[in-house]
Amino acid sequence: MADAAPGLGEFGRIARFFAPLALPGALDLKDDVALIDGPDGDQYVLTTDTIVESIDYFPDDPPFQVAQKLLRVNLSDLAAKGARPFGYLLNTSLPSECGEDWLTAFTAGLAADQKEFGIGLLGGDSTKIPGPTSLTVMAMGRIARCKAVLRRGASNDEIIYVSGSLGDSALGLQVRLGALQGLSATASAYLIDRYRLPQPRLGLGQQLVSVARAMIDISDGLIADLGHLCAASGLGAVIAAEKLPLSQAASEAISANPIFKKAVIGGGDDYELLFTAPADASERVAEAARAAKVTVTAIGRMQSDGGVRLIDAHGSPVKVDLAGYTHF
Amino acid sequence: MADAAPGLGEFGRIARFFAPLALPGALDLKDDVALIDGPDGDQYVLTTDTIVESIDYFPDDPPFQVAQKLLRVNLSDLAAKGARPFGYLLNTSLPSECGEDWLTAFTAGLAADQKEFGIGLLGGDSTKIPGPTSLTVMAMGRIARCKAVLRRGASNDEIIYVSGSLGDSALGLQVRLGALQGLSATASAYLIDRYRLPQPRLGLGQQLVSVARAMIDISDGLIADLGHLCAASGLGAVIAAEKLPLSQAASEAISANPIFKKAVIGGGDDYELLFTAPADASERVAEAARAAKVTVTAIGRMQSDGGVRLIDAHGSPVKVDLAGYTHF
Repeated sequence: MADAAPGLGEFGRIARFFAPLALPGALDLKDDVALIDGPDGDQYVLTTDTIVESIDYFPDDPPFQVAQKLLRVNLSDLAAKGARPFGYLLNTSLPSECGEDWLTAFTAGLAADQKEFGIGLLGGDSTKIPGPTSLTVMAMGRIARCKAVLRRGASNDEIIYVSGSLGDSALGLQVRLGALQGLSATASAYLIDRYRLPQPRLGLGQQLVSVARAMIDISDGLIADLGHLCAASGLGAVIAAEKLPLSQAASEAISANPIFKKAVIGGGDDYELLFTAPADASERVAEAARAAKVTVTAIGRMQSDGGVRLIDAHGSPVKVDLAGYTHF
Repeated sequence: MADAAPGLGEFGRIARFFAPLALPGALDLKDDVALIDGPDGDQYVLTTDTIVESIDYFPDDPPFQVAQKLLRVNLSDLAAKGARPFGYLLNTSLPSECGEDWLTAFTAGLAADQKEFGIGLLGGDSTKIPGPTSLTVMAMGRIARCKAVLRRGASNDEIIYVSGSLGDSALGLQVRLGALQGLSATASAYLIDRYRLPQPRLGLGQQLVSVARAMIDISDGLIADLGHLCAASGLGAVIAAEKLPLSQAASEAISANPIFKKAVIGGGDDYELLFTAPADASERVAEAARAAKVTVTAIGRMQSDGGVRLIDAHGSPVKVDLAGYTHF
């Protein structure tokens, strides 16, 4: 979820230290998943994420919702490949304060999401630590062989789409921190909920198999994750700032606090799907969105020039300043 | 690896909070693995273990060996099912002190053991934390469907065997702590090495498929893990104290420090295989041991009375006092 050493940065460290250790199914560690052969012509899609108290959630967040967030950040990675979720392993590193009351609420959250998403527990480990609480899930999904939508695979001129709305979670975090004020109670509650409770777009991801050519979920922010998709495909992208989909609450928050506009492109933790499809597939994309009951918005186009450019309604470049939205 | 809350204890918490969440392949969370369908008539065997600095290893242990220990405690669980190791996911939670030098040594240790055991990296996540360092591996093996040797499955009167020698690792920890003195340098070095570097008995485990009826690796100590095997099979066991296999170094250590005798039955971290086989399979067990180049010793017999009893050479009960060898 976060960078562990200054200098090389997370992705530099992965490329230098870990990629040489990887099996072919690990996709050079350049996707968020690995693919291994499964039964009946399927592949398993494997992903893992760790969340840590005071970094990825607040110490006073309800354990029920912490459990849901833990599962959902992993399920979002499966969604971005078009996979059907199947099961998970869970490692808990808990300080002594996390006793039976905590476990009761935490496992109730797991049970609720198991039911919602059709998954079950496969195993795990528990460790006692001084703190902070650290929670790891390794989630598995299934998909027909060679059907997973990867980060790589986009082509020049393809349309770039995003699901749902952008920036809500990052704005919700700012509300939670008391840094974003003057909002209606409804808007505040909506944004905080979007921060606490990601909505993995599993239905949409599955509908997009054979439609989307490249896909990623937005966890590091639109610009960063589009950059990953572009790098994997050896292409660049141009995005129309005025097309970026905002919720009513995000619009309200940004009107009152324009400085937070950059949350939309760099906030992270959106857990929306970002994908490309050929221009002639627009009706199939719309059908997938309708079937999954999720809005999908065309926001730009892949191009052969490298890098990600943001333009305004007149086609002029918009300066991208993400300072303050890096994780560290 | 360790108990996370007082009261129910690790196994009580698993049974109460987590077993209700488990899929069928999770074996009611009563084994150390889950089994899921793989390709070509195989099953995948999944296991996960977390190791934590200052709990499972010393802060000044070389990162190269920490990496090996991390992989090997997981591989030992695969060995105990008879599986062939295949791949793993790795989650690192590192404090800022673990920079590029640490990563260089740590990943060199991973690379060495990948080569030794024929496994590769499938993915992972990295998180920055204040400390202590916490490392999680989820390891996968493969085995022909329905061939995995489980904890359950032992029958009355079957012979109980153990691989290698017992107590070395626990004694090595005491040497490391300075609590066990008066040893030759050779014996000290041997015991410390056995503590730092588990030897997963993968070859033996694979040879024992279709020979062993129930199997577990010894991580919590002989008596505790035999108790798990017995409970899973609904049986008890009687063990002959004088048959327990000791290394020369362990014999030397216990002669000089008789109080540490209990390390042999309760020390833990042995990572030897404990298994049962019918009396008429003794030649097949011996063949498996020869093929794997690991000693195997018959130490007792399954019986219908519940519990684990230790007897001396005259058949009299030996009092088992494991105080001081619980993890917390």
